[in-house]
Amino acid sequence: MSEIENICIKTKAASARIAALDPEEKKAVLLEIASGLNAARKTILEANKKDVEAGTEKGLSKALIERLTLNDQRIDAMIEGVKQVAGLPDPVAEILEDFTRPNGLRIQKVRVPIGVIAIIFESRPNVTVDASVLCLKAGNCVVLKGGSDAINSNSAIADSIRNALQSKGLPEDAVSLVRSTDRKAVKELLKQKRYIDCVIPRGGAGLINMVVENSSIPAIETGVGNCHAYVEKTADLKMAGDIVFNAKVQRPSVCNAIETLLVDEDIAKAFLPEIAERLEDAKVELRGCAKTGKILANIKEASEDDWYAEYLDLILAIKVVSGVDEAIDHIGRYGSHHSEAIITADEEIARKFTTNLDSAAVYVNASTRFTDGCEYGMGAEIGISTQKLHARGPMGLKELTSYKYVIQGSGQIRK
Amino acid sequence: MSEIENICIKTKAASARIAALDPEEKKAVLLEIASGLNAARKTILEANKKDVEAGTEKGLSKALIERLTLNDQRIDAMIEGVKQVAGLPDPVAEILEDFTRPNGLRIQKVRVPIGVIAIIFESRPNVTVDASVLCLKAGNCVVLKGGSDAINSNSAIADSIRNALQSKGLPEDAVSLVRSTDRKAVKELLKQKRYIDCVIPRGGAGLINMVVENSSIPAIETGVGNCHAYVEKTADLKMAGDIVFNAKVQRPSVCNAIETLLVDEDIAKAFLPEIAERLEDAKVELRGCAKTGKILANIKEASEDDWYAEYLDLILAIKVVSGVDEAIDHIGRYGSHHSEAIITADEEIARKFTTNLDSAAVYVNASTRFTDGCEYGMGAEIGISTQKLHARGPMGLKELTSYKYVIQGSGQIRK
Repeated sequence: MSEIENICIKTKAASARIAALDPEEKKAVLLEIASGLNAARKTILEANKKDVEAGTEKGLSKALIERLTLNDQRIDAMIEGVKQVAGLPDPVAEILEDFTRPNGLRIQKVRVPIGVIAIIFESRPNVTVDASVLCLKAGNCVVLKGGSDAINSNSAIADSIRNALQSKGLPEDAVSLVRSTDRKAVKELLKQKRYIDCVIPRGGAGLINMVVENSSIPAIETGVGNCHAYVEKTADLKMAGDIVFNAKVQRPSVCNAIETLLVDEDIAKAFLPEIAERLEDAKVELRGCAKTGKILANIKEASEDDWYAEYLDLILAIKVVSGVDEAIDHIGRYGSHHSEAIITADEEIARKFTTNLDSAAVYVNASTRFTDGCEYGMGAEIGISTQKLHARGPMGLKELTSYKYVIQGSGQIRK
Repeated sequence: MSEIENICIKTKAASARIAALDPEEKKAVLLEIASGLNAARKTILEANKKDVEAGTEKGLSKALIERLTLNDQRIDAMIEGVKQVAGLPDPVAEILEDFTRPNGLRIQKVRVPIGVIAIIFESRPNVTVDASVLCLKAGNCVVLKGGSDAINSNSAIADSIRNALQSKGLPEDAVSLVRSTDRKAVKELLKQKRYIDCVIPRGGAGLINMVVENSSIPAIETGVGNCHAYVEKTADLKMAGDIVFNAKVQRPSVCNAIETLLVDEDIAKAFLPEIAERLEDAKVELRGCAKTGKILANIKEASEDDWYAEYLDLILAIKVVSGVDEAIDHIGRYGSHHSEAIITADEEIARKFTTNLDSAAVYVNASTRFTDGCEYGMGAEIGISTQKLHARGPMGLKELTSYKYVIQGSGQIRK
């Protein structure tokens, strides 16, 4: 038996106990985890220092080192996050449907935990905390596999969480960390279908595709975002400029930032020069189609690859379109079905855009940056699904549950 | 480009049009399909004759030939099924949630079609009709891949459906059939993630595992049923006998029939001899644990494999257990998480059984044979999910949909 299989067996064995916890017990465990993290602060920071030193030596980029680094403030934020999740409504045991059939069978559809969830993620050690507490709050156990660059930090955090579980009399294996940094470990993990009900990759497109290609466990694809803003000809151009600027610049490294701006040709001359100046002042590199190039003479020409790109950076592709139909076609062809916005004063056109676009979130006169579990009132988020099965868009606690049917009879048999 | 990829591209291209149909249009198309099948009756029966002849020559088992064979009565049943689906409530465009955030954003969660669904199935040609109309009613397009033994029947049926679509001015590619009988075709189909949103295998465990192992498209596992009935010591033994007999004998070839009977040791002597006689009279072969063997002296001994088996046949494994905990452990260890029943007069024990068992459907004092979309009032069923993501248990029209978020703003940007 491999180390990975052994971990999964132990986690699965813990799952019935965790699934059966009542809301108060779960809340108490989460609060224990929060105080445990506080108590383990020094250990965690020391472990993190090792990772940061190794990463610097290895030549990791500044951005990666930044993501990897913990400090007191970030640990405070982690602890605060755990407390927030502890206070959220418990999603388990909700009766989703309750009806009686003509033969007298009473059928209840009841929300239940999924069971064991595997989370595969990259360098941010805070995911170890976030993912663990969200899974536990929904009654699930979790097998975590983080990036090798954060192995010491993740181990210290996982140890602290496992200690908290144990001190509440619960199986520490409810939260397991794959500590092997062997690259084969992920593929081995993706074969453990007997013990794992669902796998959620959190990271870049490379990681997500690898998981989807290699997993026999049902997977939820999250977070690849080639998002669009479309400024329709009836748009309030001031509003359009504010939304486009916000969606591109406020946090360019995240999946709900826009990568392509589409502008109606009727207003391109009126709209583009001003927004271009504003974006260039914010150090955004612009790349335009031929028509855009006639209006913004000094910008780079966009290639076919630009329309597909998820830059996650201060770069914006711009295309002038003939109207809503071309905008819909373009987004359908090149987009990742994440989040799109139209800025328009025409309700009919807005309806066409929201109805015909096959994306998780479609905005009228608002920034795509709102696609987020907290912004949707879910209280927390495990990721943003870009697939259409199980969950779509921001995934909170409810999206970490399944359901079952419980049927009460009085001797009914099938005729 | 492969033939398969070409089919998928064309089906995907049809999907926006189908997704946008309103309820009345969809109903009209389905009724057109029903009359088209009636008009094509002779062609379909002739094509089916070819398949039956080829199958007989090839030496297919009597059971398989029986499943493959169409006649007027079966075509009538198909047509009746289409009319029933036509009359069901349209699942698309339902507003699942509608709320306004403190910043004024109005967020609506709207039910939408999944898009393109691939259905991979074995020898029954009626699946071509059932799957097509259920997918269309939920606004989806479908790529069908049936067994090679039914290729002529499936082609004739698919042609009839495609003609009906065309005569209503709709793209015939909304319903596509992979006509290649090359075994590689399925694996090629499972790679078409760009065009297919979901794959549903319908058939035996071998087919389902092959799909799950090879698909990069999200799959829904359906229909492997190692179901259990547990007769608890407080059970009404008359009721228990009727339920066990029904769950095993009424239709042994289906996934919701039971394969193992668990009996409390306190009542084993009182219960087993009578039910054994009744089952043996119905030609059921019994295989028992050691304790069962002491009560039913002449039956075969059950091996470890028997506890895992999905017989789909007139065979029943019997195990004497010490109580509800052992029953729950046994089912959790060997079962397929499909359907289980407890027969008991003790509400507390019933609650323990329904809460702690991780199965799609858990019955108290009723037969497992009720796990079925029609019996649950869904009107129709595309399959029974045994996984926990997306849908669990019987899947009707709603389970063939996804959702998206539509957000109405007035210029909101993220702070």
